[in-house]
Amino acid sequence: MAAAGANGPNKVERRAGGIDGPTNPMVTPLLTDLYQFTMAYAYWKAGKHKERAVFDLYFRRNPFGGEYTVFAGLEECIKLIANFRFMEDEIAFIKTSLPSSCEAGFYDYLRGIDCSDVEIHAISEGYVVFPKIPLMRIEGPVAVVQLLETPLVNLINYASLVATNAARHRFVAGKSKLLLEFGLRRAQGPDGGIGASKYCYMGGFDATSNVAAGKLFGIPLRGTHSHAFVSSFMSPDEITEKSLRSCEGSKVCEDFVSLVQTWLNKLKWSQLLGGIFGETNQSELAAFVSYALAFPKNFLALVDTYDVMRSGVPNFCAVALALNDLGYKAVGIRLDSGDLAYLSCETRKFFQAIEKEFGVRDFGKTGITASNDLNEETLDALNKQGHEVDAFGIGTHLVTCYAQPALGVVFKLVEINNQPRIKLSEDVSKVSIPCKKRCYRLYGKEGYPLVDLMTGENEPPPKAAERILCRHPFNESKRAYVVPQRVEELMKCFWPGRSGKKREELQPLNVIRERCIKQLDQMRPDHMRRLNPTPYKVSVSAKLYDFIHFLWLNEAPVGELQ
Amino acid sequence: MAAAGANGPNKVERRAGGIDGPTNPMVTPLLTDLYQFTMAYAYWKAGKHKERAVFDLYFRRNPFGGEYTVFAGLEECIKLIANFRFMEDEIAFIKTSLPSSCEAGFYDYLRGIDCSDVEIHAISEGYVVFPKIPLMRIEGPVAVVQLLETPLVNLINYASLVATNAARHRFVAGKSKLLLEFGLRRAQGPDGGIGASKYCYMGGFDATSNVAAGKLFGIPLRGTHSHAFVSSFMSPDEITEKSLRSCEGSKVCEDFVSLVQTWLNKLKWSQLLGGIFGETNQSELAAFVSYALAFPKNFLALVDTYDVMRSGVPNFCAVALALNDLGYKAVGIRLDSGDLAYLSCETRKFFQAIEKEFGVRDFGKTGITASNDLNEETLDALNKQGHEVDAFGIGTHLVTCYAQPALGVVFKLVEINNQPRIKLSEDVSKVSIPCKKRCYRLYGKEGYPLVDLMTGENEPPPKAAERILCRHPFNESKRAYVVPQRVEELMKCFWPGRSGKKREELQPLNVIRERCIKQLDQMRPDHMRRLNPTPYKVSVSAKLYDFIHFLWLNEAPVGELQ
Repeated sequence: MAAAGANGPNKVERRAGGIDGPTNPMVTPLLTDLYQFTMAYAYWKAGKHKERAVFDLYFRRNPFGGEYTVFAGLEECIKLIANFRFMEDEIAFIKTSLPSSCEAGFYDYLRGIDCSDVEIHAISEGYVVFPKIPLMRIEGPVAVVQLLETPLVNLINYASLVATNAARHRFVAGKSKLLLEFGLRRAQGPDGGIGASKYCYMGGFDATSNVAAGKLFGIPLRGTHSHAFVSSFMSPDEITEKSLRSCEGSKVCEDFVSLVQTWLNKLKWSQLLGGIFGETNQSELAAFVSYALAFPKNFLALVDTYDVMRSGVPNFCAVALALNDLGYKAVGIRLDSGDLAYLSCETRKFFQAIEKEFGVRDFGKTGITASNDLNEETLDALNKQGHEVDAFGIGTHLVTCYAQPALGVVFKLVEINNQPRIKLSEDVSKVSIPCKKRCYRLYGKEGYPLVDLMTGENEPPPKAAERILCRHPFNESKRAYVVPQRVEELMKCFWPGRSGKKREELQPLNVIRERCIKQLDQMRPDHMRRLNPTPYKVSVSAKLYDFIHFLWLNEAPVGELQ
Repeated sequence: MAAAGANGPNKVERRAGGIDGPTNPMVTPLLTDLYQFTMAYAYWKAGKHKERAVFDLYFRRNPFGGEYTVFAGLEECIKLIANFRFMEDEIAFIKTSLPSSCEAGFYDYLRGIDCSDVEIHAISEGYVVFPKIPLMRIEGPVAVVQLLETPLVNLINYASLVATNAARHRFVAGKSKLLLEFGLRRAQGPDGGIGASKYCYMGGFDATSNVAAGKLFGIPLRGTHSHAFVSSFMSPDEITEKSLRSCEGSKVCEDFVSLVQTWLNKLKWSQLLGGIFGETNQSELAAFVSYALAFPKNFLALVDTYDVMRSGVPNFCAVALALNDLGYKAVGIRLDSGDLAYLSCETRKFFQAIEKEFGVRDFGKTGITASNDLNEETLDALNKQGHEVDAFGIGTHLVTCYAQPALGVVFKLVEINNQPRIKLSEDVSKVSIPCKKRCYRLYGKEGYPLVDLMTGENEPPPKAAERILCRHPFNESKRAYVVPQRVEELMKCFWPGRSGKKREELQPLNVIRERCIKQLDQMRPDHMRRLNPTPYKVSVSAKLYDFIHFLWLNEAPVGELQ
């Protein structure tokens, strides 16, 4: 089977521009639907391929039953655009995929295609965005822009979905908790994992377990050990190198294992903790001791391999107290099963009792991380029950967007040859908003965004302190006057093509992340709440409203009653 | 931002073995969780890193409420294993990710790691598989095998999930329908799309729209045009090149547009079709004519941009009939909205009326493709309502596995240094089955698989015609004697390491696809039905049962009642 992989010598050629190619080298101009090529051929055959078209990329509904979405994925789109060129092997493959009757001239045309004549305006990555408002406006020769449809939609869809999911998890967890993305193994394929790590960080997570994502994007990494590590040990007898130098380096404990055993006995016979546990699991104790010997400054133990309160927590505490004797401060425990609210509270009490009984300062504050199929609902339930968790490791539900695994981003033609176009549908929510447009966000007195407004490209822009009529695009009775405190134009030019406009620079991930956190913070709270959030208003100008409905009547067939 | 992409010169070095690297070049040894490296360090520090460990990779529950799963993703795993080596830049990155106290010798150890001492047994890709049975058994030095955990689980999880989803869609659609995977734009990232195309084909789909997947895997490609193509035209007046040569080449129709218009008029005034439609949309007509001029042998039109029965279908038929005059046979229509059952039936009647009225042979059988948010449920509902659809284009729900976007594949230590290991849990379904095992499928008289059986590695294998006791691994009362007609050992050696065993060759995708279809066909129907399927039995030998429970009692802490 000739699965040659996506990289190869010609890949390097493609990266000729000043902007790197997409993170995943499999993102090439072939990562598109076949119909983009059949259409390109039909356009070319009709002499129509260079007609200037304008497409809007947008979504119709916010995900997860919410009223907001985080826009993500733009950087990868621009990296694709900047390096968009067909290699000879790709053209040869397209040739075998189209009917043999297709004329050779078409392949010469494909050979010459790039995005130098394409112009892209977009909202900045990390912005909070809403349905119907174009996230990107792509204009250029119709055949080229059609080829871009599939990869651009693919690159925005999951990125925005998972960034939104991360933001929603952060919202429920609260700002004080550490949020760790642990989803790589359950993600939808390798770069489902890598993408999740990037966009969850963007949406407000603090770190990932995914080393490749750490290297690619500079995301902080977290991780300690698994159940397998615990069960790979049999007993402390197998630990041969038992010495540990104290933290400040002055002394060496020759038998750290014995020190731990001593502490375990003290705990067992302690009055405050009395009788909570008997014999702890010796395989687990050996694993914890070994891990502490390897990482005395970073000791964090997974405590649920055998039994949390009767084995894991006492074993952890014995090791942590032994480390404390040598000047080290244990980081904490991780719970990965069971009733996390109850176990975290019981563990906290155990830690606090130790602080009290043995006078170990701050031992009561030792960190508690929780994992195990967490999601928005379980975080919410934990909050309601009361818990003592300091950090959450979240995987499956976060990265696969289990509650809604797809966002419906679409890419619609809104103008060609300066002629506005509309796509009708019996479902009003699927009717497209025609015309090359500009989009504005109008802010109220309290600093909150009030409404997003679309206008025709050449309408005078709305101004602060002026009274502006904002209309629902399809419902004639929904309209409101707004006097904005501040007006922000949403789309900027990220790829100027030949327009001579200034190109917005791509920002580093941490800058986009900060922007995203700020954007989420400035939203009016009722739009953000989990239960029955208030929809944010999206509107069109009076002039655009009138034009949409004129065009609609013009294009819809008139029935014949019989 | 230093997002250098995953490929680079050192990638080429890595592909030194006789087996190509993974399809996605981002699948490297860094595509793992940080804790695999912290554990590797702790193993190394304890001198335990070379201890021989056996891990099982399996899942605990079939997805989508069903009772079967298709095993997929093995080839990519073997490609990773065969090329598993750390590059210097990766080691440098790991160094920055671990505490600075980690000793330099560890990085030398990492430099020397490969999978030459790892041995992998696995079920063949495309097999129907069941919970708890190891899909792969990975043995080797514990530190190396742990590093493999995350990428192997990632590569199997989504692959098996989406292949199963495809098989389920095929089951509902029936064998006679053409199934097209159209999911790239909605997939979870670029190789979510590429993976979906590969594994949906494996699970029984016929083709994909994804050109990159077509090139990588040789999957048949399908696609015609979109709504944007339709609305990019204004009227037939803009068609300048109107001539079309007849199919066999003998004559040229100088004005194909007029020929179409003539047919449209005939249809409008036809007695049989009378009054169904009035003026059709001229933008749409122009688009259909242009598409037919470009692809006269492959004319398939998307008919719902304006109105299916009042515009799209009549316009399509006019063009199809004009093509017919020139000896071409139109392929058909695509419906992408509305009531697909009703519209397909109405369209079929329209086609049949034309066949009757104008004597166009087989016109009534013109193809009808349906798309628009299809899934198992909607296919089932269409079947119940009655429909006339010949081909289904399925995207979002298929590729994102909307009904259940993650499969819970896990990777558990079952033996180390010849010592069987168990992971306990308060949830019995999460207790792991210890020991290095062999797995067998026992077939009954009618040729159906009856039960899968796990035994210890060194137990005598079950034999056909012998009476075998099969026990539920955790429920003592569930057991049955089986006299199999045939016994099949499930796991084969796909990576022998230094064992000297013969390596099973990786098969081409179409061979795996055929195997998968055959596997699905041979299952007893009650396991496969959508509603209340019968669970397939998974069992352990009497000897393994006893050992599991001995070990369980041995490891579980004994409580102290107070």
